[in-house]
Amino acid sequence: MVLVPSISMNEDPAEAADVAAARDRETQLSKFSQTLQHHQHEQQARVASSGNEEANAVDHEKAVGHTERSRWLTTAPEPPSAWREVVDYLRGMGLPSGSEFSSLNKKPVTQRVACVLKAIFPVLQWCRGYKATHFKNDLLSGLTLASLCIPQSIGYATLAKLDPQYGLYTSVVPPLIYAMMGTSKEIAIGPVAVVSMLISSMVTQIVDPGAEPVLYRNLVFTATFFAGVFQAVSGLLRLGFLVDFLSHAALVGFMAGAAVVIGFQQLKGLLGIAHFTNRTDVVSVLQSVWKSFHHDSWNPYNLLLGSAFLSFILITRFLGRRNRKFFCLAAISPLISVILATVLVFVTRADEHGVKIIKHIKGGLNPISAQQLQFSSPYIGEVIKVGLVIGAIALTEAMAVGRSFAAMKGYHLDGNKEMVALGVTNIIGSITSCYTATGSFSRTAVNFSAGCETPVSNIVMAITVLMALELFTRLLYYTPVAILASIILAALPGLIDLHEAYHIWKVDKMDFLACIGAFVGVLFVSVEIGLLIAVTVSFVKIILISIQPGIETLGRLPGTDTFCNVDQYPMAITIPGVMVVRVKSSLLCFANANFIKDRIMQSTGGEDEGERKMNDFQTTQLIILDLSNLMSIDTSGIASLEELHKNLVSHGVEMAIVNPKWQVTHKLRLAKSMSKIGGKAFLTIQDAIDACPNAKLASI
Amino acid sequence: MVLVPSISMNEDPAEAADVAAARDRETQLSKFSQTLQHHQHEQQARVASSGNEEANAVDHEKAVGHTERSRWLTTAPEPPSAWREVVDYLRGMGLPSGSEFSSLNKKPVTQRVACVLKAIFPVLQWCRGYKATHFKNDLLSGLTLASLCIPQSIGYATLAKLDPQYGLYTSVVPPLIYAMMGTSKEIAIGPVAVVSMLISSMVTQIVDPGAEPVLYRNLVFTATFFAGVFQAVSGLLRLGFLVDFLSHAALVGFMAGAAVVIGFQQLKGLLGIAHFTNRTDVVSVLQSVWKSFHHDSWNPYNLLLGSAFLSFILITRFLGRRNRKFFCLAAISPLISVILATVLVFVTRADEHGVKIIKHIKGGLNPISAQQLQFSSPYIGEVIKVGLVIGAIALTEAMAVGRSFAAMKGYHLDGNKEMVALGVTNIIGSITSCYTATGSFSRTAVNFSAGCETPVSNIVMAITVLMALELFTRLLYYTPVAILASIILAALPGLIDLHEAYHIWKVDKMDFLACIGAFVGVLFVSVEIGLLIAVTVSFVKIILISIQPGIETLGRLPGTDTFCNVDQYPMAITIPGVMVVRVKSSLLCFANANFIKDRIMQSTGGEDEGERKMNDFQTTQLIILDLSNLMSIDTSGIASLEELHKNLVSHGVEMAIVNPKWQVTHKLRLAKSMSKIGGKAFLTIQDAIDACPNAKLASI
Repeated sequence: MVLVPSISMNEDPAEAADVAAARDRETQLSKFSQTLQHHQHEQQARVASSGNEEANAVDHEKAVGHTERSRWLTTAPEPPSAWREVVDYLRGMGLPSGSEFSSLNKKPVTQRVACVLKAIFPVLQWCRGYKATHFKNDLLSGLTLASLCIPQSIGYATLAKLDPQYGLYTSVVPPLIYAMMGTSKEIAIGPVAVVSMLISSMVTQIVDPGAEPVLYRNLVFTATFFAGVFQAVSGLLRLGFLVDFLSHAALVGFMAGAAVVIGFQQLKGLLGIAHFTNRTDVVSVLQSVWKSFHHDSWNPYNLLLGSAFLSFILITRFLGRRNRKFFCLAAISPLISVILATVLVFVTRADEHGVKIIKHIKGGLNPISAQQLQFSSPYIGEVIKVGLVIGAIALTEAMAVGRSFAAMKGYHLDGNKEMVALGVTNIIGSITSCYTATGSFSRTAVNFSAGCETPVSNIVMAITVLMALELFTRLLYYTPVAILASIILAALPGLIDLHEAYHIWKVDKMDFLACIGAFVGVLFVSVEIGLLIAVTVSFVKIILISIQPGIETLGRLPGTDTFCNVDQYPMAITIPGVMVVRVKSSLLCFANANFIKDRIMQSTGGEDEGERKMNDFQTTQLIILDLSNLMSIDTSGIASLEELHKNLVSHGVEMAIVNPKWQVTHKLRLAKSMSKIGGKAFLTIQDAIDACPNAKLASI
Repeated sequence: MVLVPSISMNEDPAEAADVAAARDRETQLSKFSQTLQHHQHEQQARVASSGNEEANAVDHEKAVGHTERSRWLTTAPEPPSAWREVVDYLRGMGLPSGSEFSSLNKKPVTQRVACVLKAIFPVLQWCRGYKATHFKNDLLSGLTLASLCIPQSIGYATLAKLDPQYGLYTSVVPPLIYAMMGTSKEIAIGPVAVVSMLISSMVTQIVDPGAEPVLYRNLVFTATFFAGVFQAVSGLLRLGFLVDFLSHAALVGFMAGAAVVIGFQQLKGLLGIAHFTNRTDVVSVLQSVWKSFHHDSWNPYNLLLGSAFLSFILITRFLGRRNRKFFCLAAISPLISVILATVLVFVTRADEHGVKIIKHIKGGLNPISAQQLQFSSPYIGEVIKVGLVIGAIALTEAMAVGRSFAAMKGYHLDGNKEMVALGVTNIIGSITSCYTATGSFSRTAVNFSAGCETPVSNIVMAITVLMALELFTRLLYYTPVAILASIILAALPGLIDLHEAYHIWKVDKMDFLACIGAFVGVLFVSVEIGLLIAVTVSFVKIILISIQPGIETLGRLPGTDTFCNVDQYPMAITIPGVMVVRVKSSLLCFANANFIKDRIMQSTGGEDEGERKMNDFQTTQLIILDLSNLMSIDTSGIASLEELHKNLVSHGVEMAIVNPKWQVTHKLRLAKSMSKIGGKAFLTIQDAIDACPNAKLASI
């Protein structure tokens, strides 16, 4: 009953081991034959039972054997072409040609216009249901937001190496535009730390803000304009997925790195250093600080003032977290710090003792800056590049913020609409003296906690900031620079998510590498390098996983027709004489086809030459190659399958392929390779076993 | 019996259509309920039949329900760590720690040494069985090879911008070394066109061969040394897979591009142009030719001579292909051409009328060049880079040649041994005045056709070339340069495989893009850019396929428990109320997770807001997410699965996941996400349907 090739018994000294192995196998075989018999009975029973009852309904099913199923496989219709896939993909993204507009055509013109307007300005949708209770909440959260926003805006403007009023301008127009067009209810729009730092670090490489402040500012506006165009165009072309290309892990690392860099840069304000490096990497910054210490060009009063108010802000925040009652105090503590510090300096005239103060802030409405956009500048190429990078980072941050809060409230954020809204916001911002605005992590959290209901809180904030610009800018004359540094520093811990980094480390080491790569890159080289490292690691990971070479042995799970990896499911039963292997990777291509082919040959024992062939006996009579993992195959992959079949046949082993995916079947057919690899293609592993006489021979 | 949510019937004017749709669905449902009933009967019958017979064998199987199987899934052992995978991978590559050496330890010392020697020098293995009949064939093919090799070597040396004797040297030592260490029987080792062109184009960028011929030559030897080191080290470290990274398609394009470039360069010799560009791109070459035409610095006799003998070689080859009898004539026609042309020039003294001749070739044995390797040269960095590129290309070519002929004769080529052999060949070559040698396409084909049996044909060839070097170099004084150009030109068509390019185009458009990218890059920019384009396109293709976003709807194949893509298998039956979707990509990661999540939400109708929700009724009560395609998942993927579950639940839809792979299960467990996505994980789709009460509700 059991077929053990006879060559195994009569050669070489290592006979004893062989005999034992053969006995083992014999036991296995008899076990399996029982299983198989059971299985065959099962099948007969199945056919019988289906025959007895419901003859009509199952007529079709009864007739279907593995031959028929194999035919289904080989005669499947052609898969959609690459072009078709792209079109379907774009449909899936919700291109305007979709259902939205087809239903539109049936309606009268006025309704159509209303529909389009509503799609562009979601405000028209939600404002109809707006109630007084909503406004109460929005007013409160808007005012809270403004109290945090005014000092932060001034601080971020200095981070972006612009005059303080430009930060305030950026907190007026962008929130108003976004409130009309955005779909997020909580997001707080305005200047943010990372984008401010990014813009200054990149534009500084083009012109020196110290030497040519006007040109520098104009280039910042121009970069903002291109960032907006990039965002709006991406949204219109439904390229929302581009935002996803900076992976979550990379973003965590990037944000943390940027926060540390910004933190170190604040040493300038905190120490009152006059000459500071333009570079952002930690080494340059620390060198710069070290030099100032050395030349005694710093002032301890600045440090004293800064640290005192930083402690105050951090303590109130800590209290606010422990107890809801103190939340409001935590939110307005930056504003309180500014007022207290300003009064303190004014009273003590500390500016005469070396405490640096903001001095003049130009008040009034945002001036128009359309004339200042530098489209014919010789730097236009570099500025467009800056715009792209800033636009992408700003988008990523806004989407991350918006999505996380939308998920908390359980509604969905339309990525493409958000991109258009943010793009238009920045385009209009760039012609009204604003630099790049986006959703701020810290302020959005405050807005959410303060109980905002709609984007009206953004409008309230913008109007408050506008009033401050009109009325109170003179009062900020004596505000010490160190206090701005403390406010920025206080906002940074929110950007460093150690908990998430640990989570990433635990779940996926490669993701963590992307995270730490971005962090280190930003910290020690530059923002662009950090981003580049993160994106590269992320994509290298995709490549490695996709082409990871290797095969897994499959066994039948008891009680089912399902075949699974025997390592993952130790209870799975392998079949003697039949080797069921699955290609592990999702592509059989130039990069792994040869390796996988060699691996399969090795596992059949077909690779050994000379001596070993004589000693070991060949156990495998049938190789079943489960191709279900393969998404695609290329010409190298097809060639190696053909070669594998040829080699196996020359070693007396049969080969069957099981469940090739649509694209794979199609490509094998195009290359006319089905016959070259033996023509044995089955839908399931059981079908392949049933259909191959060799396998039966071995197992019965 | 049929559950149609009542909201669908009593709103909006488009009622009629809805009613019709509902009716359709009703019909479907009743059909399905029949199918399901049948299926349940089937299952009962199966359990009954297995209960009746072979009670012992199947005791275990009977008890196993979907709950048990689901438990198997969630309690699978931990998958091997990344480190373990790498170790296993290296084992698979056949690292010396494997079985080879463990069996070795049992043997006495002398046998062990013999074993190791045999592994390093395969010649010791095959020479024992070497017979006189073998030698007869090898002698014949070796001589045929030499007759082709001598003129080609001289030609390729001029292509590499070296003196002619260096080509001959490269045909002496490398074949001898390779014959000792190589495992291929047919491959003909020596200088080849593409490597010669590559070496001259790359080293020319470092020093000008016209101005500093000695330094240039020394750098070529040094580059050859590093190419050899790279090859040998790759082989020893079992990095044979690196060769595969230049995909087949890219190689086809690269070879064709290189052939065209070499062809255009031959215009120099064919037209007898004195001043020629050092650049390899077609535009520079044609400009150079145009200038020469303009300044009349070319000579028509060269062209006449070259074209006449080119025609002769091509005609004899054509005859040789049509008729086996002329094969020998075709093989030695280059040698005949050289002899005839030399005699012709000597007799007519054509060199005095502008026909360029080779003049002096230094005869004698290969001089030692160990002293000339430039390890302390300032160019060492660049030379190492050149060595790497040349080593890689030479390896790729040799492996492609060796593998294709090994496959023809049905034996296996050990990639790593080949790499070591080729590496040692080139290292020894570099200290004996040879430049980089590798397997030649054209000469290997001749060797094979001439009936070689073992690497002895290479030895015969080497000795013949050596004799020519000792005795006949003076006779080549009057050989016209144009004849060398014709010989090179005649070898080029073999490098352009239009048929294969068409095949690639037919099977895989992206592969063809890599092919044409390499071709265009080599032709119009430079060899390195061509390679870079090819490799980039190949890897971008891998990324695109791996992250291609999308889902496919699955249906049950009649007569089975197998669920398949309904587009691929139109006979598959979908289940009303239950939506079975499979993620198409092999990775659920940052790049596609959000898109896939949105897509699934759309397909359930859960995405629509406001109006549409009222019109359509919700058909889906259960989403079964088949994760079997996923090789891995990252933190973004896990987050989007959690979000998807939350969204689905909020729309009243249940979600179950089916057959997550080992890594995916593990990562979900690490992230503690199993419960967050509902905890419903099943091994098969049928199990999921059986286990979810909602689904039963909908379908019975």
